[in-house]
Amino acid sequence: MEHPIRSWAELAPRLVAVAAGREAADLVIRGGRLVNVQSREILDGWEVAVAGGRFAYVGPDASHCIGEGTEVVDAADRFLIPGLIDAHMHIESGMLTPAEFAAAVIPHGTTTMFTDPHEIANVLGLDGVRMMHDEALMQPVNIFTQMPSCAPSAPGLETTGHEISPEDVAEAMSWPGIVGLGEMMNYPGVVAGDPKMLAEIAATMRAGKTVGGHYASPDRGVPFHAYVAGGPADDHEGTREQDAIDRVRQGMRSMLRLGSAWYDVESQITAVTERGLDPRNFVLCTDDCHSGTLVNDGHMDRVVRHAIECGCDPVVALQMATINSATHFGMERELGSIAPGRRADVILTSDLATLPIETVFARGVLVAEDGDLRVTCPHYDWPESARQTVHLGRELIAEDFRLSAPEGAETVRARVIGVVENQAPTRALVRELPVEDGAVMPAGPVARIALVERHRGTGGVVNGFVEGFGYEGRMAIASTVAHDSHHMIVVGTDAEMMARAANRLGEVGGGVTVWRDGAEQALVRLPIAGLMSDAPARDVAASADGMVAAMRDAGCTLNNAYMQHSLLALVVIPELRISDLGLVDVTRFEITTPFEGQD
Amino acid sequence: MEHPIRSWAELAPRLVAVAAGREAADLVIRGGRLVNVQSREILDGWEVAVAGGRFAYVGPDASHCIGEGTEVVDAADRFLIPGLIDAHMHIESGMLTPAEFAAAVIPHGTTTMFTDPHEIANVLGLDGVRMMHDEALMQPVNIFTQMPSCAPSAPGLETTGHEISPEDVAEAMSWPGIVGLGEMMNYPGVVAGDPKMLAEIAATMRAGKTVGGHYASPDRGVPFHAYVAGGPADDHEGTREQDAIDRVRQGMRSMLRLGSAWYDVESQITAVTERGLDPRNFVLCTDDCHSGTLVNDGHMDRVVRHAIECGCDPVVALQMATINSATHFGMERELGSIAPGRRADVILTSDLATLPIETVFARGVLVAEDGDLRVTCPHYDWPESARQTVHLGRELIAEDFRLSAPEGAETVRARVIGVVENQAPTRALVRELPVEDGAVMPAGPVARIALVERHRGTGGVVNGFVEGFGYEGRMAIASTVAHDSHHMIVVGTDAEMMARAANRLGEVGGGVTVWRDGAEQALVRLPIAGLMSDAPARDVAASADGMVAAMRDAGCTLNNAYMQHSLLALVVIPELRISDLGLVDVTRFEITTPFEGQD
Repeated sequence: MEHPIRSWAELAPRLVAVAAGREAADLVIRGGRLVNVQSREILDGWEVAVAGGRFAYVGPDASHCIGEGTEVVDAADRFLIPGLIDAHMHIESGMLTPAEFAAAVIPHGTTTMFTDPHEIANVLGLDGVRMMHDEALMQPVNIFTQMPSCAPSAPGLETTGHEISPEDVAEAMSWPGIVGLGEMMNYPGVVAGDPKMLAEIAATMRAGKTVGGHYASPDRGVPFHAYVAGGPADDHEGTREQDAIDRVRQGMRSMLRLGSAWYDVESQITAVTERGLDPRNFVLCTDDCHSGTLVNDGHMDRVVRHAIECGCDPVVALQMATINSATHFGMERELGSIAPGRRADVILTSDLATLPIETVFARGVLVAEDGDLRVTCPHYDWPESARQTVHLGRELIAEDFRLSAPEGAETVRARVIGVVENQAPTRALVRELPVEDGAVMPAGPVARIALVERHRGTGGVVNGFVEGFGYEGRMAIASTVAHDSHHMIVVGTDAEMMARAANRLGEVGGGVTVWRDGAEQALVRLPIAGLMSDAPARDVAASADGMVAAMRDAGCTLNNAYMQHSLLALVVIPELRISDLGLVDVTRFEITTPFEGQD
Repeated sequence: MEHPIRSWAELAPRLVAVAAGREAADLVIRGGRLVNVQSREILDGWEVAVAGGRFAYVGPDASHCIGEGTEVVDAADRFLIPGLIDAHMHIESGMLTPAEFAAAVIPHGTTTMFTDPHEIANVLGLDGVRMMHDEALMQPVNIFTQMPSCAPSAPGLETTGHEISPEDVAEAMSWPGIVGLGEMMNYPGVVAGDPKMLAEIAATMRAGKTVGGHYASPDRGVPFHAYVAGGPADDHEGTREQDAIDRVRQGMRSMLRLGSAWYDVESQITAVTERGLDPRNFVLCTDDCHSGTLVNDGHMDRVVRHAIECGCDPVVALQMATINSATHFGMERELGSIAPGRRADVILTSDLATLPIETVFARGVLVAEDGDLRVTCPHYDWPESARQTVHLGRELIAEDFRLSAPEGAETVRARVIGVVENQAPTRALVRELPVEDGAVMPAGPVARIALVERHRGTGGVVNGFVEGFGYEGRMAIASTVAHDSHHMIVVGTDAEMMARAANRLGEVGGGVTVWRDGAEQALVRLPIAGLMSDAPARDVAASADGMVAAMRDAGCTLNNAYMQHSLLALVVIPELRISDLGLVDVTRFEITTPFEGQD
């Protein structure tokens, strides 16, 4: 069931009657200072009247809108700012369902999210996207869905649980909560004129919706221009000031990102604060936030606060998280400002620089106060098909994690994935490894890695080696969060531990488990698609903390080690990755051999 | 037949191929300085490549887009600015068909118009709107149609040729060239919650299109707020700085108007130039331009130039006539900027302050150079039903223009419409007039006025008196341009001359004719709906000049006398008007009697 919000068209008779003083408003907020993101002003003493979840009156005196049954709130000289908008994000990154993600971010003032359920699309296809979309529409805040564009993200190099076709995109465009196409990551495809990618974009454009961009290359020459000509309307992959400028000059919106591990606002917002570019085409977003960030640091409030700390005028920073984002998605008359007809999403804050989120209204209803959620975020009835997505086909044994050496070899020169701290790209290393009983053995800093097929129960396991985590002793860690195809990645020093970790995730339906010396040290349960929990963010963050501690106890001192782990199958980022089809050379975009000199 | 412009979605493969250097562009412009209205910058040396009528590449070097068959234009260090957009206007005001209007304004750099064919809607209803819409789509520039909202503009006070219903509005929303609802003039209706007006607005909102506003009252209190809550998204009726500010604060776009007789830019643009409001919600438009203005002074180039003279930064002024307008209508990715995928509408000008319109490209085609049109503007095949709209039903005679006095009266105290120079409102005067043979006679400064029914051939004539034109001798002037219902207004000193003038318009199918001493002095032929000519603007302007001269020869020294004449039936502006139903008291919104003391 969708959370009710009547359209402006439907509600207009009541809004007019309230504004004219003929009917009583549901809610009036007085005694505040209104931040007007359209005129870029602060209007002292302005008042708002709300009816049916939308603003009916915004002006100097709402007395005439007050009647029997009107709740009157005294803003006590605080600022009224529009509810904050996250213009691009993946809910799955929080390891939370849309409901629990909403519950976590509402107290931070986020009342609108534009979400791309790209991860579940890889696991459950269009059905999974629909489930996310449906739970999104049940929430008391606005969660719009961008239809994922790239599943698989690297066709031919991996097998996803499901694929997204141009026909899927066309179908999704008719769903009520779909606002556009999610980040078009396959930029080489667009630049090359790949008909499938252009067909997805065309289906989106024909529906009059927004094509999300994702141009992850630093090359802003000819390929960049060709990508833009293909139709993407925004991009959140910029990291330098010039990236932001170049995108805006091309008529894209530059999305400046502050996620749990992305720090791209400070380096780019100078395009506005120092270079003086028109701010209207700059938009703030998070892209990816872990549950721990949501619990401890905030969400869009954190991003706006950071933008202000970077020297951005507070009202301009607020525009970048409200009206600019709404305009980008063709929704400037639906949300993103405090003006008649818009959804009555409004925050009371006593300071525009430090931006404490004190009171949050969404659609005219009090949803959070002083950090406490004051509303229910209903759960979708996730079917078994979404809760049982770890299909191993059989019980795995130590032998499954054994990589045979070439006949008669005593050592091998193995290709090893080299993890680099704080960097997404890996290095393609070659290490000489010993052979025991015909099997290649890890040694020194080199651990085993395995990609366990988990979508179709084929029982397939691809083995390889990885260096850089620092694991010691008999241990293993397995995760069904394994971008982008989300099979299962198992890393360990011991084949027996690896089998037990993998089987454990089959048993609990997905998540992350850390094993040492025969016993489970930590478990993060992610039963929904093996990606998300429907427990509260606080609980998920706590169990994620336990996981990090267990990894540390196993000898891993790498910063953000779990993120590194979950990205080891991301076959679109160089240099060496693993997929269900083998080791992948992401420099040459092809499957390679486990040992040097075999090809 | 529509003028071809393939959608970005359809053209994307070619645009990508050209931007990537795999295919040759149709046109490359080099050696210029690009005005980037998104970033608000001037980019020296930037080049553009065009394919299929859209920009494929916009950047520092388009060499790789040049191949066999590419036309290369040297901008010779001139500025490249986006084609200009008129965000709200009535083509009929130019007394020209869309084709001839386009032909007149293209050399002035106008490449996009948002037009409201409100006048023809009163004469021919939805069919007339469709004809205007269809001719609009045949042009080599972009003419979008706003569906007229208010025909009749004052229900019960006049009979239009046709009426517009909410069902008509809903139907029109599916036409390819419709972008929204035309100015919602019936603001008392919206404020009162009139179901018909709200239904028209709802049909527009449901189609995802823009509702045009027209709040003509100076009262910005409660009624203004109620009007805004009803849904109008813009307003061009502001005249003072505070009007503009108030509209933007309500989340509307403030349209600043410079028409032939509207001077509302200078008084309002200070909201940006002095008060520092965010310029993004300010938009320039003309509303109404006579053919003489188009021929002698310009069109949107005149407006932008004027805005700059008023102290507006040239790039900001250009934004107000390009990207701001496009964004308002949800078309920021279709036009209004020089960026990939957009329609290749671009002007070359050697000076940003004086803005000479030297070269104009529309959809990548050279359409004007040095003031000369270089393209054909095709004519719609207007049917007889549109060319024969003056239905008098019979030949009129002098007796038709005779107003009987009450039985036995020797003089009467007649209600007289008082024309005030340079003001739209009239005054409701009372004058003692003589009676001869039972008929009231004009005397001194008082002339006769008659409203001749011309839509249904009823033969109806409503008689009254008017003061202020200064006519002398035996004369008459008749016009089928008679806002808003466009019957025929005849003003004269002599009943015989009035009958001949009226019959003359019946004979030629509409227009304006001036008679004196038994002979026609001037004729402006407006055969299309009695409102427009399909002759070139230059010819229409010349014959309009002839009309003004003839009026002057008949003793009329009033400024803009013909506009006053054509507004005498506009029964929404106080104080006294004439309609096919009688004299109208527009202060009380009711039909009144011709003589004082009769009610």
